[in-house]
Amino acid sequence: MTAYILSLSCPDQPGIVATVTAELFRQQANIIQAAQFEDAETRRFFMRVVFTVVDEAAASAVRLAVEPLASQLSMTWTVRPRDRRQKVLLLASRFDHCLADLLYRQRIGELNMDVAAIISNHPRDTFGDLGGAPFHHLPVTRETKHEQEVRIRALVEETGTELVVLARYMQVLSDDLASFLTGRCINIHHSFLPGFKGAKPYHQAHARGVKMIGATAHYVTSDLDEGPIIAQDVEPVSHADTPEALVRKGRDIERRVLARAVRAHLEDRVLINGTKTVVFPD
Amino acid sequence: MTAYILSLSCPDQPGIVATVTAELFRQQANIIQAAQFEDAETRRFFMRVVFTVVDEAAASAVRLAVEPLASQLSMTWTVRPRDRRQKVLLLASRFDHCLADLLYRQRIGELNMDVAAIISNHPRDTFGDLGGAPFHHLPVTRETKHEQEVRIRALVEETGTELVVLARYMQVLSDDLASFLTGRCINIHHSFLPGFKGAKPYHQAHARGVKMIGATAHYVTSDLDEGPIIAQDVEPVSHADTPEALVRKGRDIERRVLARAVRAHLEDRVLINGTKTVVFPD
Amino acid sequence: MTAYILSLSCPDQPGIVATVTAELFRQQANIIQAAQFEDAETRRFFMRVVFTVVDEAAASAVRLAVEPLASQLSMTWTVRPRDRRQKVLLLASRFDHCLADLLYRQRIGELNMDVAAIISNHPRDTFGDLGGAPFHHLPVTRETKHEQEVRIRALVEETGTELVVLARYMQVLSDDLASFLTGRCINIHHSFLPGFKGAKPYHQAHARGVKMIGATAHYVTSDLDEGPIIAQDVEPVSHADTPEALVRKGRDIERRVLARAVRAHLEDRVLINGTKTVVFPD
Amino acid sequence: MTAYILSLSCPDQPGIVATVTAELFRQQANIIQAAQFEDAETRRFFMRVVFTVVDEAAASAVRLAVEPLASQLSMTWTVRPRDRRQKVLLLASRFDHCLADLLYRQRIGELNMDVAAIISNHPRDTFGDLGGAPFHHLPVTRETKHEQEVRIRALVEETGTELVVLARYMQVLSDDLASFLTGRCINIHHSFLPGFKGAKPYHQAHARGVKMIGATAHYVTSDLDEGPIIAQDVEPVSHADTPEALVRKGRDIERRVLARAVRAHLEDRVLINGTKTVVFPD
Repeated sequence: MTAYILSLSCPDQPGIVATVTAELFRQQANIIQAAQFEDAETRRFFMRVVFTVVDEAAASAVRLAVEPLASQLSMTWTVRPRDRRQKVLLLASRFDHCLADLLYRQRIGELNMDVAAIISNHPRDTFGDLGGAPFHHLPVTRETKHEQEVRIRALVEETGTELVVLARYMQVLSDDLASFLTGRCINIHHSFLPGFKGAKPYHQAHARGVKMIGATAHYVTSDLDEGPIIAQDVEPVSHADTPEALVRKGRDIERRVLARAVRAHLEDRVLINGTKTVVFPD
Repeated sequence: MTAYILSLSCPDQPGIVATVTAELFRQQANIIQAAQFEDAETRRFFMRVVFTVVDEAAASAVRLAVEPLASQLSMTWTVRPRDRRQKVLLLASRFDHCLADLLYRQRIGELNMDVAAIISNHPRDTFGDLGGAPFHHLPVTRETKHEQEVRIRALVEETGTELVVLARYMQVLSDDLASFLTGRCINIHHSFLPGFKGAKPYHQAHARGVKMIGATAHYVTSDLDEGPIIAQDVEPVSHADTPEALVRKGRDIERRVLARAVRAHLEDRVLINGTKTVVFPD
Repeated sequence: MTAYILSLSCPDQPGIVATVTAELFRQQANIIQAAQFEDAETRRFFMRVVFTVVDEAAASAVRLAVEPLASQLSMTWTVRPRDRRQKVLLLASRFDHCLADLLYRQRIGELNMDVAAIISNHPRDTFGDLGGAPFHHLPVTRETKHEQEVRIRALVEETGTELVVLARYMQVLSDDLASFLTGRCINIHHSFLPGFKGAKPYHQAHARGVKMIGATAHYVTSDLDEGPIIAQDVEPVSHADTPEALVRKGRDIERRVLARAVRAHLEDRVLINGTKTVVFPD
Repeated sequence: MTAYILSLSCPDQPGIVATVTAELFRQQANIIQAAQFEDAETRRFFMRVVFTVVDEAAASAVRLAVEPLASQLSMTWTVRPRDRRQKVLLLASRFDHCLADLLYRQRIGELNMDVAAIISNHPRDTFGDLGGAPFHHLPVTRETKHEQEVRIRALVEETGTELVVLARYMQVLSDDLASFLTGRCINIHHSFLPGFKGAKPYHQAHARGVKMIGATAHYVTSDLDEGPIIAQDVEPVSHADTPEALVRKGRDIERRVLARAVRAHLEDRVLINGTKTVVFPD
């Protein structure tokens, strides 16, 4: 038996669960996990089903059977083999705590992905072991930004990249590139209560005397740092924490929040709901 | 439209979700929330559906329609109006932090319950405002324990109590009473890493130098402190915390864990799975 | 032996700890707890010492001995009996989760305070048991705001109030009243990542799809919600949480963060450091 | 100016802080951080002071000055340059999440240590990049255990190792080796509420239906898993987590708790207090 993930969203209406699960039953697909959510405000319905079938032919039959339902219910949907590794492109700048953590998790099998490429605006020797992934040093200046993004985009296309992860990539993407990557590019950034704009955010948070620091992983949109949120976490800090201590504690939060978001995305557990997300638990 | 909660468990087999949701659809019940879980080890299936129907007659029709399914699938099941308040009996001893917290949450509408009675082995003036609930002082000694439990049991029956909450009730229930209350009696107790047996647990934890303290809410069984766990939480502590400070911090953890467990139970979100529980998120 | 708390801050310079502790030793005061902090940025020094002496006369001798040191080192300082209850005035509006929690903690001895008065812009019957504290219904409209604040200020003065707590008091204090209460008025408000301005903050947070909600307790200054932060905490939320669920979860966070801040203040563990605070652990 | 850490413990008596800080002042040492703790039960006093002096000669003068005090007060004490890297020997078995994390943190400067050697009972190719540290494959069977431990001990001595870290090293140390490493060997293990003995602990925790899982870092003593606790942490889990999911979540907790404990030890922030520890915050 092979496991597949059906993931769908559509305008809400009575009977969707019954219709979908009945069709799966008819196709002799065995549901092993299912979750659904009705957004009472947007009147939109979201569902994720993990099912097993005997072979790829049976999975194709499921796809064929879902097709007319999808059309009838105005669904956005996918059916994917659960074990298929997605191709992921990682971008990093000088600090590699998020990059190193993602690579480690990939190596031990926690993240179901192949690293299509690693891109940095800093040279190769900035980093430790990259586990054999192709590395591209694409430096960037104000003048060469457009050209550099053209090369990023080309790499995404050439490698068949399905997800781009900004693993502390400290360059702001142009609106064009952000649009091109809509729904398939995850970023991580620091978050505080209250929030701060501008440079050296941990130093600002220190000056403000915050008692908690945090991080947010979100899909990139052309509205900087304002895309749909996937995951967040925080840690307590105290007056005795220097700005450097905040940066250090921030690294731990950033890497675990980013890993959580990437993992959720790779398992088709994140469905975009306008400016928000539905994240089904694993 | 009135909301009802269908809660069920049965041996797992293909098609249960399809069968149940199709029947609800046929009865013109509108599903507004649904969650299910298949335990891969015990091969048991659990489901909770919140649906709306036009009136109580329609709900009765749903019950009639579920009956044959339930029989065919060997289900344990209930259908209850979501807004109906359950009758809850609270037991407390000298310390009333859990009791006071439950009463407060009941007063502001967080806990959908009526307080059938409050029983304590300590006198009425141990406590502050009880919000008008009937109070029974049932002192207990080794000799009168049986007699006292007979009166507790009688109060449960007379008041039509549906749930008993041991809100820091420091008496161990007899096996008989524990059996009588199976699946409808929730207890709260301290929990540490590692655990400790015997008296003055917070003092033991202090002597051991633990860095976290916690609490566990669970269903009462005749095996003391070992019933199915519903909720747990912890807080960090340090070498500077005295035993008294641990007790104080423990109070906060105990009251919030107990409230979370009681709330989950009242919303039919807790399904017993042998010696474990399934707790659907709210 | 009676315990006293010496709390001080001054410009940093070498030898302060040695000077202060040597003087206490000379006065036969026995230090049972001490904490200090040097702010490397502001070059300011903070210290809190709990010491015991044989009687009030000995404590007076300590005060006399500290006086010249304080003058020489430009200290802000206090010496207070640890067990003396401070007089606290509580303000609340319609929602009383913070108020009820503070009153409960006061009743069981967790907060070392006497409730000088409770003031609300809502009538007495909005609230449950107030534990016998004097209650003042001071309604407020745009026109009567000044007059109402005059009465609040009069009550602060008549009762000898040492600390004012805004326990979900939904009125903005005027700059005048905020100034009058500088360093002795604590407020609690919701906090999110990112933050939100304006009405119905939990609804805004829901619309933004945040995955954590939190609360901040801070000293009130004329800059609304921007005073020195004393305590913060957060909880995870999900897409399935309605705005009402966020409000409910927010209540738990608000009450525990406010209680933590009030407790720290009452124990002289909070020292103001410009726009920040030093909060020594208990 | 160079920073040094003075760390001491001794039987409690009045005037210790005054005596120590006065002596440092006399030696023109500038205190930049200080923390102390009096254990009211064991009547033992603990202190950690970070001070700066102009050069190593001045530090030697401090040592000479502390010597007679230490003798007079029955102190256990050390004075160490804050920036000196300690030599650390890491032991791992098949799973390398803790090892990889410690190496990463060492590489980016979070852990002030040199890796003296890495020892495993599994071969070199079990692991990824080891950052150039000497690797020793020391397989072990019941018969060769003594001999293997002799080699570990020899490596500790040859390399001048100051701290040994069991980074998920799945072999139980003999009493002899544990004694030899007293106070300078840190272990990490899983922790649950309640605790479990025996093999496959995460599977046992799953069978028990726990709602939190955690990890404990502690000094190794001959009493297995019962040495003085340095750090603990937990994470929530649910009924939906498989044993494999618990193992995965456990990895994250284990690596961060171990890193926190190692960091605290390397910064002389952990002082042993009988069967407990004093851990001063960073």
